[in-house]
Parts: sequence; structure tokens; C-alpha cells
Amino acid sequence: MKLASLNEGGRDGRLLVVSADMRKAVRATGIAPTLQAALDDWADAEPALHALERALAEGRAEGAFDFDPAAALAPLPRAYQFLDGSAYYHHMSVVRAARGARPPEDFFEVPLMYQGLSDPILGPGQPLRLTEDEALGIDIEAEIAVITGDVPMGVTVEDAPGHVRLIVLLNDYSLRGVIPPEIGRGFGFLQGKCVNSMGPVAVTPDELGDAWNGRLLSGIYRIHINGRRLGELQPGIDASFDYAQLIAHAARTRELRAGTVIGAGALANADHARHGSGCIAEERAHEQLRNGAPTTPYLRFGDHVRLEMFDARDVSLFGAIDQRVERYVAA
Amino acid sequence: MKLASLNEGGRDGRLLVVSADMRKAVRATGIAPTLQAALDDWADAEPALHALERALAEGRAEGAFDFDPAAALAPLPRAYQFLDGSAYYHHMSVVRAARGARPPEDFFEVPLMYQGLSDPILGPGQPLRLTEDEALGIDIEAEIAVITGDVPMGVTVEDAPGHVRLIVLLNDYSLRGVIPPEIGRGFGFLQGKCVNSMGPVAVTPDELGDAWNGRLLSGIYRIHINGRRLGELQPGIDASFDYAQLIAHAARTRELRAGTVIGAGALANADHARHGSGCIAEERAHEQLRNGAPTTPYLRFGDHVRLEMFDARDVSLFGAIDQRVERYVAA
Repeated sequence: MKLASLNEGGRDGRLLVVSADMRKAVRATGIAPTLQAALDDWADAEPALHALERALAEGRAEGAFDFDPAAALAPLPRAYQFLDGSAYYHHMSVVRAARGARPPEDFFEVPLMYQGLSDPILGPGQPLRLTEDEALGIDIEAEIAVITGDVPMGVTVEDAPGHVRLIVLLNDYSLRGVIPPEIGRGFGFLQGKCVNSMGPVAVTPDELGDAWNGRLLSGIYRIHINGRRLGELQPGIDASFDYAQLIAHAARTRELRAGTVIGAGALANADHARHGSGCIAEERAHEQLRNGAPTTPYLRFGDHVRLEMFDARDVSLFGAIDQRVERYVAA
Repeated sequence: MKLASLNEGGRDGRLLVVSADMRKAVRATGIAPTLQAALDDWADAEPALHALERALAEGRAEGAFDFDPAAALAPLPRAYQFLDGSAYYHHMSVVRAARGARPPEDFFEVPLMYQGLSDPILGPGQPLRLTEDEALGIDIEAEIAVITGDVPMGVTVEDAPGHVRLIVLLNDYSLRGVIPPEIGRGFGFLQGKCVNSMGPVAVTPDELGDAWNGRLLSGIYRIHINGRRLGELQPGIDASFDYAQLIAHAARTRELRAGTVIGAGALANADHARHGSGCIAEERAHEQLRNGAPTTPYLRFGDHVRLEMFDARDVSLFGAIDQRVERYVAA
């Protein structure tokens, strides 16, 4: 099942059920007004949403219309919690090596994870807006995230996959000019993580078939900057931690409540020559280590990014994040 | 005006207008179903809430009932964003001195602030539940927080006070056995900050009169652990940064959206002998520096904490946070 949020009716949009081919959609507001409301009451909402999905597939859904992925809000246009891990070692090791630093010594023992910004979450076609560009070092981070139901405190790694409700495409905008001094002060990321965006649809685990093994997503994640390939990554390999481990880590001293978004950090594969990079910082780090200086620039106003994930049959799983960077002007 | 959330109708409760003396309340659900909904649409909601407040004061409000602060949810039972500063130098300097560390060198130049957990926020009488007690080093942090409306990116310190909608009493539960290794890894706080709680009512700036100068709250903040005084602090003095500065810092690279909660960190005054401590860690640090070893224990299951703030006439501004620590059992 694919769910989305239509830009209508307020900050949270209106819940849509979207067809498997992402061509048709129908308002699910008779079941739950918003995706958050559906997640809050999933045991009741899920079977009703599935019934609506079947009606849509069979051409029986009243009020069905053509789905426009580019005009959708994020499936969760704002969330109560976003936690982002750093599960791909080759992202962190290369980026830090280029500035003479190293990952924490216990990187492989305990997941690194931070509490991130979750309001707003940009829709797939909404621009990133900032007051400055070059000084901030604007970068993407190509990620996959899960959205959980209610997760008890102390959940085990074995039980964690059963709490995954939805999987989403996520772009974690990161400001490379801001992050190093900020994390050097010990309180983690704040100004350096300015906003996230999500792909047009959130997808249930069953809908992903073999691509989702309960703990990781496999397939090819393609990233383009101004039409030029930055990376073609495989999130299903080279992960030091999977979503089950990330959920268990997050839930050690807290319950995770319905609608919690958990990312695994910027994707990176061991074979950079083959896969490229999941963020500009990593591409620059490789250039620095190889040639003595980076050449790929960070994003500037007017630049365009596109992120999309494909399964083994080259079918797009979530639709694309396809957005521009613009200058911020207060409303 | 005082607003609260009744434990009724779901995770966000139902919005209440509470009388100035906190004895009477009335459901405001004809205006907005929840406090978040009122904040989302404040320009329309505020005058209607004020009219209901006047009706309540004059005994004209239909459906008015006796307000039970201990049974209330947090005014915002879950929030989309919680950002916590560390504005009181004497908290950080003493706690770090006791373990041989120091505040960042630029402490007075740039606010320290982290993105914190905002779902759930415990109500004033709801217990803190954790799976372990002594190993975690359970502690309180007595705080005052503001709740903002929509704040533009890049807001100035001068303009920031106009975006403060409400002020709340806040307790930031902190796990001292978890925090030092966690922040040593560079990603800030996660497992070490397990939940926050709020006092029973959120109060508009105008209702606080002289106690709120637009940038800081004055009065006496009394903290008791198992009936014993831990601190009697003055949040209006000894702050290195005020809420206007904290808001401007937070909004450098993001818009803050309605319902953002911004704390100023654990209260601490320069004169410890007179004011005591706003958290147990600080009391223990003073004991360590004075006697070579701490004697005040961290919280254990069954322990009781009470936090309450009083104005110059010794009137309670927000009601009390009055809660116990209990062992967590999964639902």
C-alpha cells in the first residue's frame, strides 16, 4: 500500500491512498484525516485503507483522481520525532578522513544517532530555501527512513521490525560550513541540519516485496545534481547497522510513538568507483584524498537535485524527490 | 490567559481555557480542538480564547468545571519541535568542573542548544517510567520554556519576543549515567534525555505581567525531591542568554513553526549557598568539589519530585509538576 498527503486542508495535508503504479489516488479522509491520524490508530485504519486500496485498483473508488507526485506534500508534512542514525561506515570514514578526523572508536559497537528536525518536512517538489548559499555549504544526504508505530521502551532487535509501518525516501539537507564547529561543541546538530524532504509516497513493508527484508531495503538509489550523476547506491549492502538495530537503540530509554521517523544516515558503499556518492561532501572528500583538492561544488541557489530509488526490475519504489535550492524570503 | 489540555479525546487531549486562579476550566473545543490547532491558527484562535476566558471569569461560560491540575495532560502533550539551550553558565561550569571538564571556550558568544525529544511530553502528575534506575543516574532539570508561533528564518533578537505565544514550566529528565559517553561521540543527546514534563498550564506573556519582561521570567522556582528542598532559584538573573537570543539562534537556518518549544536549560544561580540547585547533578558537583564526594543520590523508583514557580507575591504561576519515578512495564 502506498500513502501520500495532498496539499489541501492545512499543515498536515489530507491522507491519500495511491495506486501501485502511482497514477491514481483517492482521499482517505473518511478513514483518517491525515497520515499521522492513521498512524495514531493504525489497528483500525490499516484494514480500511487496504480496502480502499483494493477499490482504487479495481476502479471502484469514488472520487479517484490522477496523482501528481511533484505536487504532493511529504507523506508526513511534519512529524513528532525524527531520529537519524549513521549506519553507513564509508560515509563517515571518508568525510572525516578528508579533514584529518576519524569516526568514534566504538563506531561498530553502538549506533551513532541524533535527534533531528521534524517540522516541516518538505514535499518532493518543494524548494529548499535558505538565506545564504556558499557560506553554508549546502549538501544533500540520500537516505531511506522508516516510520514506526508505537514501540515499547527496551524493544529487542528481534521484535523491532514488526513495528515498522512505512518506508520512505528521505533527503537530509546538511550544511557543511556549519556542522564541524557545531558538533565540536558537544550538543550535536542544530543549525547544520536545516530541513529534510521526503519522496511522494510512504510504502508499507508488504508492498515492497523482496526489496524489504524486514531490516534493510535493497535496490538502486540514483542521485543527480543538475542532471549529473552523483551516485547510484545500494542501501541493502555495506550497512553497519540495520533499521531493527537502530530502532532498538533509539528505544533504550524511551517509548517511540506512532509516526517516529528513523533514518540510517547518508548512504555509502565501499566501492566508491562503482557506486559514487550519496552526498556532495563525500564526493569532495574522495576528490581531496585523490587529487589534493575538492572540485564538486556545494549547492547554490538555482541548483537542482533528484533522488529516486528503484527495485530489481527498475521500477521506482517511492517516486522522486526533485527540488531546487532557492533564496529564502520571509512570508 | 491560561491554557491546558484535558486528558480526553486522544493523544493531544482537549484544549481548555483555565481561570486565572486555576480553579475553573472550560473546554475550548468550539474554537480549536487542541492547543496545537490553536497555535497553528493563532490569529483567529487567540481573540476567541480571550473571549471565552472573560466568560469564564464572569461565570458566564457554559460547561465550566473544577480544574484538576494534577490530572491534566501537558499543555502540549506532544510537540513537533523541542529545542533546549544551556543559558545558565553556573549549571554547566560546576557540573563539568566536578568531572574535570570545562564548558566550550565560546560559551558566552554562541548559545549551546540541542534538538530534544518532544513526543511524548508528560503531564504534571504523570510518572516518569524507566526500565532501570540506579545505573541510569536519573535526574531532573528545572526549566522554563517558551512556546512560539511561526518564526521566520533569520529573525532578529529584537523581533523574537513578539513570536512568544506561551510560557511553561518544564522538567527535562536527564540520565547522568548515559550522557557523558553519549555526548563524547559528537551527535549530542539521545538516550540521555528520556522525556520532558510540563506544568499544568501554559500562560500567555500578558498574563504574567511584570514577571515576564519579554525576554526572561522573574520569580522564585522551588524544587523539592522527596519533600526536601533542592533549590529555590531565580530564573530572571544569571542567564547568559535570554529567550530572544535563543529563538534567534535556533532560527538562523530554519523557520520555527507554531508550537516549537524552546527551553533555556537547567536553571542555576551564581550564589549556590543561597539558591541551591536546579538539578541533582549540580548539587552532587558542589558536594564533590566541597567534600571530595557527592552525597545526594540520583532518583530511584518511588522517588518524588516537585517543581513550582512563584511570582513576587508568592502566587504559583503555572501550578506544580509533581510526579514520581516508576519502573517501566510495556503496555
